[in-house]
Amino acid sequence: MDFKPLVARNEKKIVMLVFDGLGGIPDPSTGLTELETARVPNLDAIAKKSLCGNSLVVDYGITPGSGPGHFALFGYDPEIEIGRGVLEALGVGHRMEKNDLAARGNFATVDANGVLADRRGGFPSSERNREICRRLEEEIELPGCELFAIPGKEHRFVLVIRGEGLSDALSETDPQKTGVIPQPVRSLGKNAKKSEKIVNSFIAQAEKILKDYRPQNMLLLRGFAKSPDIGPFPGRYGLRSCAIAVYPMYKGIAKLVGMDVAECGATFPEQIDALERNYNGYDFFFIHVKETDSAGHAGDFARKSRVLEECDGSLPRLLALKPDCLIITGDHSTPSLLREHSFHPVPVSFLTENACPDSVERFTERAFMSGGLGIFPARKIMQLALAFTLKLKKFGA
Amino acid sequence: MDFKPLVARNEKKIVMLVFDGLGGIPDPSTGLTELETARVPNLDAIAKKSLCGNSLVVDYGITPGSGPGHFALFGYDPEIEIGRGVLEALGVGHRMEKNDLAARGNFATVDANGVLADRRGGFPSSERNREICRRLEEEIELPGCELFAIPGKEHRFVLVIRGEGLSDALSETDPQKTGVIPQPVRSLGKNAKKSEKIVNSFIAQAEKILKDYRPQNMLLLRGFAKSPDIGPFPGRYGLRSCAIAVYPMYKGIAKLVGMDVAECGATFPEQIDALERNYNGYDFFFIHVKETDSAGHAGDFARKSRVLEECDGSLPRLLALKPDCLIITGDHSTPSLLREHSFHPVPVSFLTENACPDSVERFTERAFMSGGLGIFPARKIMQLALAFTLKLKKFGA
Repeated sequence: MDFKPLVARNEKKIVMLVFDGLGGIPDPSTGLTELETARVPNLDAIAKKSLCGNSLVVDYGITPGSGPGHFALFGYDPEIEIGRGVLEALGVGHRMEKNDLAARGNFATVDANGVLADRRGGFPSSERNREICRRLEEEIELPGCELFAIPGKEHRFVLVIRGEGLSDALSETDPQKTGVIPQPVRSLGKNAKKSEKIVNSFIAQAEKILKDYRPQNMLLLRGFAKSPDIGPFPGRYGLRSCAIAVYPMYKGIAKLVGMDVAECGATFPEQIDALERNYNGYDFFFIHVKETDSAGHAGDFARKSRVLEECDGSLPRLLALKPDCLIITGDHSTPSLLREHSFHPVPVSFLTENACPDSVERFTERAFMSGGLGIFPARKIMQLALAFTLKLKKFGA
Repeated sequence: MDFKPLVARNEKKIVMLVFDGLGGIPDPSTGLTELETARVPNLDAIAKKSLCGNSLVVDYGITPGSGPGHFALFGYDPEIEIGRGVLEALGVGHRMEKNDLAARGNFATVDANGVLADRRGGFPSSERNREICRRLEEEIELPGCELFAIPGKEHRFVLVIRGEGLSDALSETDPQKTGVIPQPVRSLGKNAKKSEKIVNSFIAQAEKILKDYRPQNMLLLRGFAKSPDIGPFPGRYGLRSCAIAVYPMYKGIAKLVGMDVAECGATFPEQIDALERNYNGYDFFFIHVKETDSAGHAGDFARKSRVLEECDGSLPRLLALKPDCLIITGDHSTPSLLREHSFHPVPVSFLTENACPDSVERFTERAFMSGGLGIFPARKIMQLALAFTLKLKKFGA
């Protein structure tokens, strides 16, 4: 249902601690998951006093990317599309605005006839990439528009054009294979003619500059996207909201939904420092821990357990703030055995005096299977958090 | 899915026992809920032989009013709107018919210039309220319409106008503040012109009568509503249906969905008497116990437990009737600690030979968390009850 008319502000505080890629599957040699292997006495003590369950991020068997994962955690429809260009822009730390059109770019090699010879332009150095991006930004003129060319790793960069009335209904210039001539963009919708003209003007001007940079003498663009048109998180929930994240992608998603992003160091204890510093100024905190996911992607089972143990040591400082509702969860699972995001439901605990705790005794995927919440949609987490902090009025008389 | 084409009548009987506001949360001093504190051996024995779960009345985190709560129990969409006027009319015991337009009324005070001075008319006595209502009913003439003015507590009354073609798309005359002149109603939809004329004629005639009753020399109307247009319960389910309720509001909701309402005394044993008397004449019984909710609203934890214990003592008489499906549940939770309706899922048990019982051993919120039904929507309860009594045909070949 649409709960937004029921939202009522109060002083109660919600902390959402997200261990990226939290859930796992058992190592066949021990029969235990990363969480079951880790010594995490504070997480276990929290689970004991919490209402627990496993969340379904998108649907049964569906593996979410980071975008859908966080959209669900923030209470939005995880199927709202966030285009590739937007995610790439967030990933390199660009703050997407309403009028921004973003695309993923490659520097590439074409031969004398303009035929694509190498889609990755011989893997330029970071320095070379930065230099090309700087020249594109400085020398290209797009009337009425502002231009951002943001270097990524190797041959990758992100193009953002900021201007009124741009549309992302554009074909891609990247043919995804060599031996053909990259095409200009074409408008795919009737409102995209202006975008087509501007992007093709960018490409034409860029080609002249890139002549000096063989084997990066061409660029390819794909994934044109604008920000999804969604209601900002703070207004939607009546929560002054603060993100405490280290990686650009997660800061970016938080900004995309309208949260403030706190200054903070790179370690979990420093994230807790930032929580303490900002605690009085906000009602909602999103704390994002990346290392659990990184260890999962690396297939490093022991490291994923160790990251959880290290973070566990700092939880008493978080508990000392006595949030009215503490949610501990992940945006998806990343089992070390799969080295990738997965579809497995994600453990979620709600520590709050307004819930009836269940009989769960440990913070693990398996223990949470008999949690009081069972399996439930991740996008209901925010609705529950508002309910547990008494921020939702009664529906109907 | 739409199960209605699958409904087949048979002789089997369903009893739905509703403890209003059944669920709770733990008292921090004991860690136990009202149900966990009560000695309820019969409820526990029923739980042991039942299939159990916790029901979601509207949605995760959403606190239902009594209207949505009972609509869900009766298998209707809990988001169907029941207007304020209809609920008020049900609450004072008026049986809403299809052509009834109801509104909540206040007797109020205006000064010599018609400016509103007191929205509650100096809190008239019940006797005075009854006298004014009687004169309104007797003296006002609305051609083609029947008029009901039903006294409530203090300054409150309910207006019902019964007539063909009335619409509830009317503005309110109650400005919700003093110092202004109450306005006549205005039609808010193109089919409400007739209603506008009739209601304003009522107000004009009433003003003349009220001249004699200063400080109740004006009336204010709000929450104009007609009954929602829903299929009646008995036809929908093929069940001759009988409500055994004490409070007017719940008798009213039962009548609204087309149930017969049995005569009965005010205590639970007297409600069981009524069940015994009517047992042969119906297929479905809705028994409504109000006191669990009243104790919860009063914040009286011990009383809520005691009400459950007292009712528990009469359950063997209910069981002796051997209903083919006995459902025990609530319309929402009312934790004594919150003194209000809440969003917490509500325990539900199905005692029937056609269910596979789970391993639940006690009738409590927490024990039911590991029940075989998990968390499921309350509006599926009737569908399950029909299935357990073999009243639903196979779907598809």
